[in-house]
Amino acid sequence: MLKNWNRPEKPEAKELKTRLDAAKEKLSQLQMRLKDHKLPVLVLVEGWGAAGKGSAIGQIIKNIDPRFFKVFSMSAPTEEERRKPFLYRYFEKIPETGKFTFLDSGWMDETVKACLHDGLNGEAYASRIDSIKRFERQLTDNGYLVLKFFFHISEKEQECRITALLGTKDTAWRVGKSDIWQNRNYEACKEVFDRYLEDTNSPNAPWYIIDAKSKKHSELQVLETMCTGIETALHNNSLSVPLLQNVFPLVKMPRLKEIPLNKSIDTVKYKKELSYLQKKLGMLHNRLYRKRVPVIIVYEGWDAAGKGGNIKRLTGALDPRGYEVHPIASPEPHEKARHYLWRFWTRLPKDGHIAIFDRSWYGRVMVERLEGFCSENDWQRAFYEMNEFEQELHNWGAVILKFWVQIDKATQLERFTERQNTPSKQWKITDEDWRNREKWDLYEMAVDEMLQKTSTTYAPWHILESTDKKYARIKALRIVIEALEEALN
Amino acid sequence: MLKNWNRPEKPEAKELKTRLDAAKEKLSQLQMRLKDHKLPVLVLVEGWGAAGKGSAIGQIIKNIDPRFFKVFSMSAPTEEERRKPFLYRYFEKIPETGKFTFLDSGWMDETVKACLHDGLNGEAYASRIDSIKRFERQLTDNGYLVLKFFFHISEKEQECRITALLGTKDTAWRVGKSDIWQNRNYEACKEVFDRYLEDTNSPNAPWYIIDAKSKKHSELQVLETMCTGIETALHNNSLSVPLLQNVFPLVKMPRLKEIPLNKSIDTVKYKKELSYLQKKLGMLHNRLYRKRVPVIIVYEGWDAAGKGGNIKRLTGALDPRGYEVHPIASPEPHEKARHYLWRFWTRLPKDGHIAIFDRSWYGRVMVERLEGFCSENDWQRAFYEMNEFEQELHNWGAVILKFWVQIDKATQLERFTERQNTPSKQWKITDEDWRNREKWDLYEMAVDEMLQKTSTTYAPWHILESTDKKYARIKALRIVIEALEEALN
Repeated sequence: MLKNWNRPEKPEAKELKTRLDAAKEKLSQLQMRLKDHKLPVLVLVEGWGAAGKGSAIGQIIKNIDPRFFKVFSMSAPTEEERRKPFLYRYFEKIPETGKFTFLDSGWMDETVKACLHDGLNGEAYASRIDSIKRFERQLTDNGYLVLKFFFHISEKEQECRITALLGTKDTAWRVGKSDIWQNRNYEACKEVFDRYLEDTNSPNAPWYIIDAKSKKHSELQVLETMCTGIETALHNNSLSVPLLQNVFPLVKMPRLKEIPLNKSIDTVKYKKELSYLQKKLGMLHNRLYRKRVPVIIVYEGWDAAGKGGNIKRLTGALDPRGYEVHPIASPEPHEKARHYLWRFWTRLPKDGHIAIFDRSWYGRVMVERLEGFCSENDWQRAFYEMNEFEQELHNWGAVILKFWVQIDKATQLERFTERQNTPSKQWKITDEDWRNREKWDLYEMAVDEMLQKTSTTYAPWHILESTDKKYARIKALRIVIEALEEALN
Repeated sequence: MLKNWNRPEKPEAKELKTRLDAAKEKLSQLQMRLKDHKLPVLVLVEGWGAAGKGSAIGQIIKNIDPRFFKVFSMSAPTEEERRKPFLYRYFEKIPETGKFTFLDSGWMDETVKACLHDGLNGEAYASRIDSIKRFERQLTDNGYLVLKFFFHISEKEQECRITALLGTKDTAWRVGKSDIWQNRNYEACKEVFDRYLEDTNSPNAPWYIIDAKSKKHSELQVLETMCTGIETALHNNSLSVPLLQNVFPLVKMPRLKEIPLNKSIDTVKYKKELSYLQKKLGMLHNRLYRKRVPVIIVYEGWDAAGKGGNIKRLTGALDPRGYEVHPIASPEPHEKARHYLWRFWTRLPKDGHIAIFDRSWYGRVMVERLEGFCSENDWQRAFYEMNEFEQELHNWGAVILKFWVQIDKATQLERFTERQNTPSKQWKITDEDWRNREKWDLYEMAVDEMLQKTSTTYAPWHILESTDKKYARIKALRIVIEALEEALN
């Protein structure tokens, strides 16, 4: 894209000023429509060192109310961030609906640096590009506007600027070693930039190359592009997004109705097994901590199926410094204002740690679907998106296990009634539980569809028959142990 | 405390088991009362390396529903955390109401290590101890239960355990270099531990020394102490907290009524000054970035007084990579569930950065006071707490500036009316603004009290007369520049 790039003509001073004023005015009006239409805008500003990315952002935001934007200057990932998936720190920073996030360099810069300095190439590079394209597509599919700018200057221009910055103490700190290195290896860098731009120039989030030779002119290019982009996005806001074909390697799952629920274990055997398996799991936990394998365990299931007790038997074996349980209730306002996977991205474990989700992102295709908290297009897309999300985690190296804790309707009634009649358990049962129970058949249909469409080889669903809770606990422990042993060998 | 400590007698095996079972049952019942009474519990587990802190926490939490607790294993602060105040990462982790946070080592461990390895002593040590005592008192005053356990073992016992852990690969990683160092310098460490325990053994958050020789016995001691502590806290829940005398160095402030509002500046002069001052501020921003000075600027003022525009003129001069504006609205549920300063602690800037708060913690003594969102005892205590909070920030090295943007009632009416009549400004005016206006006199009384009680030499209030918004902007810029120059010289 850089090679055959046509430098835009720079308008005369007077025209420049007129257009700049008009674009500023426009952006400042558009911010209110953005807010009304709940459009979130992610602006990625990439480009050459010393190309003026930061100061362009500084100019642009003058036209936006400080309540409506955030600016993040992305430096190299911290030690902590390195222990999470590559996209973690970018996903964490996506804007809320109706707001802007500006990133001063981002996933392009990090990737290009990895190519140039850490030998990222071949399959690893291709997989990184895939991740990035998926990330951007998941955002745009979910109503985000993603604007990507590349600030382009010539080798000579860059050299002049670096020299000027180095000239005074107060600006010298702005010149990083990598800027100087970049200038000395301009052509090689340009090659890598260019390949990256080509590889990630998708229709939903295209690249805009900015001629960054003049400050005012680059400001104008960004402003005008932003305004057009926002207007188009506002216009297309309510359009449905095409569904993608489920291309993930699926594992055949039974229908809930077909699952025999007569399995049980006697108490003596249970106690013996439990103690044996917990000891074993505890040892595995130590090993995966050392080997830095991240583990993600999802629990879904009927109310009163025994999720809590099951999780407890698992965590009972674990060192509390190495795991976290995330109980997932309905999203809080700041969570609802972002991509529905945001609150799960931000809860991902560090490598070597275990995250257990007591309910999860699958709420999208169960409660959110059935209660109408998202559109039909939203939940239909979600099967693909969740498979993609888990594939991302799998590629990162995570072990992913998903449990559906199964009981029948009669057993649920028994347990509800018992909870209602036992004072110490009454807090566990709410009106909502009874209401959900009335929709049992609808939920069963939704769960069946979920199990069929999201049980992948890399993140399979496992049914825990939980009429006898003890049986379900032993089964869960066994499955976890087996999966960890496989991952560790 | 360690020197004259009386080792508790260890019960016989049978009694131990009975009491342990009883304590477990009790804790698991208490968690529900905790939830009902919205009592937050912070459990700090400190002590010797290899004393069994982690595994004790592991046992205790088995009696608590995973939805109601979090465990944090605190390692050395990250690069990012080092750029915030010492207490930042601890404040960040305080529990929500009705929940537990367990810290596996915390501010004691970090302080003791600083004494032993980084030469923390004398005044710096005393100031650290002050910070810690204030932190604990602010938590307990605001309804938190703070339980502090010190796990004590003998030199010989520690040596045995370290040897055992080093024996197998899967546990060897648990032994840090500092554990071995500690064992080799047991007596010196004991001295420092002991001094710290004495210095921070306050009635509101006393230390409990745990005889950690036997696992079961230490579990019992912790469990029984927790149960007693929780019961006492539940009992005292509704008691008022004594008000502390305002001991901070105050600056005399005028009453709002006394402030002449006839100040103005002509447009030509304004433009010239603005451009001159912004340039100057921009340069200072560079310098404070290099010198790593953190800056905190608070804006409070009447609705429509011109806070937003004033902030914009300030940020217009700043590099967006080095500042953040935090617009403060009413707290979200997860914020309301914690100490009212939590959402400000977590928004503190890194050193070298500027944080601008568009409204702030002072909401406690204005809207929260007048709308009854907190108790009288709460807001009365807040004057002291906020002075203390800012002193903490000042000791960290922050420049703190607070602006009250002042207009009279007639000017507000004019601006409200203009907003109402200008389509592009209507979003700025809400019914709430009109309601607040009706309470002008009450607010004026509250603001006067706030200004008198919280304008300290290290964090003074400045009045910005904003009938002429331009005048107020120039004045703000001047004050910020002067304060930064002083801090940088």
